[in-house]
Amino acid sequence: MSKAEGDPAVGGGTGGEPKLSRASVQRFSLYLRHLERWIQEGMNVVSSSQLGDALGINDAQVRKDLAYLGSLGQPGIGYYTRELITALRHRLGVDRTWAAVIVGAGNLARALMRHRGFAEQGFQFVGLFDADPQKIGQIVEGIEVQPPAKMLEIIAAAKAELAIVAVPADTAQQVADALVAAGIKGILNFAPVMLRLPPHISLVAVDLAVQLEQLAFLVHLSKHE
Amino acid sequence: MSKAEGDPAVGGGTGGEPKLSRASVQRFSLYLRHLERWIQEGMNVVSSSQLGDALGINDAQVRKDLAYLGSLGQPGIGYYTRELITALRHRLGVDRTWAAVIVGAGNLARALMRHRGFAEQGFQFVGLFDADPQKIGQIVEGIEVQPPAKMLEIIAAAKAELAIVAVPADTAQQVADALVAAGIKGILNFAPVMLRLPPHISLVAVDLAVQLEQLAFLVHLSKHE
Repeated sequence: MSKAEGDPAVGGGTGGEPKLSRASVQRFSLYLRHLERWIQEGMNVVSSSQLGDALGINDAQVRKDLAYLGSLGQPGIGYYTRELITALRHRLGVDRTWAAVIVGAGNLARALMRHRGFAEQGFQFVGLFDADPQKIGQIVEGIEVQPPAKMLEIIAAAKAELAIVAVPADTAQQVADALVAAGIKGILNFAPVMLRLPPHISLVAVDLAVQLEQLAFLVHLSKHE
Repeated sequence: MSKAEGDPAVGGGTGGEPKLSRASVQRFSLYLRHLERWIQEGMNVVSSSQLGDALGINDAQVRKDLAYLGSLGQPGIGYYTRELITALRHRLGVDRTWAAVIVGAGNLARALMRHRGFAEQGFQFVGLFDADPQKIGQIVEGIEVQPPAKMLEIIAAAKAELAIVAVPADTAQQVADALVAAGIKGILNFAPVMLRLPPHISLVAVDLAVQLEQLAFLVHLSKHE
């Protein structure tokens, strides 16, 4: 399996550095999202409590998270927004562009390709694949749907490292195997199935039914407490 | 903000019961997904190591998670699959049907409504809303797109408790406020914005760009370790 599922600690490791929890890394992305909006609104300095309020957590947790980035905060002043954005982008590895492909040219792929957040974060979609002959050749958001046989060629040419699997559960493993064979380094899986991948391949899984189930659980809980 | 974001512990609470972590609750959904497949394949007994293998975690963690459900495992035998499914569904609150509505009749809504996992887990879509006059009246997976003005009526009639927000970021808060006013108890938010909700409303947020960023981070990390 991957690092992403089940394993709560990622990163750190060498030199006795404390380990980053998956939750902290998730929060890095969320901090970044707010900071990017705030800098556009002219906020050049932010406090840990502003970030905490935005995420619904306390400011001690924010300071603890941000301490992983080095000594950035100024006591009595806060954090310089620009500096914090740079540090977060560097730590997350998104201070560069990432080429990504999508397999499965259905509604989810269309929704993902129209999602403006991806381009803003430096993600570039360079390939879209589908096995359905009716879909091959269609243009989706400026990208032509290609047959799976073209994967290796397109992934190598664009040096794509990330792939999004948006196919039904019964073909997802086969697609993942083909992506790994084509040189992909990480997979974002939306198919409701656990993918088995070699240990050097990273995986993030988003099972949409699980998300709705989590919500039902929270509502259920709030009614019985 | 909600219980779901930032706050690592949910549930438990009364009577000195240990708190369930968000990660454990997520794993409950994933265990359930495997068990439901296995029971169809005729596996009437499962071990903690089979569940651990399926999720890529160790069996001690599985046993710890499942201990929250009561004394279910039999030493030397394992867990009775059927019994474990029943206990997980009960604990998650999905041993009933949940009526849900979707706001935003775009590609994401279409992908969600076609996702077979939802119906299997007892989620029933009873309303689909969009403010775009061109979409109102369209039939998507058997449900007619209604204007936002119909929210209160449809949500009340179907006793819908859950809502999925699949609109662009700039209208998401307004949609969420309308859903809360219409009596919704929990929101699954796909818009890349933090919703501010009253404390009694549950929230699960899925920011798709954050998921891809997490994946980029894992790949970045694996190249620098």
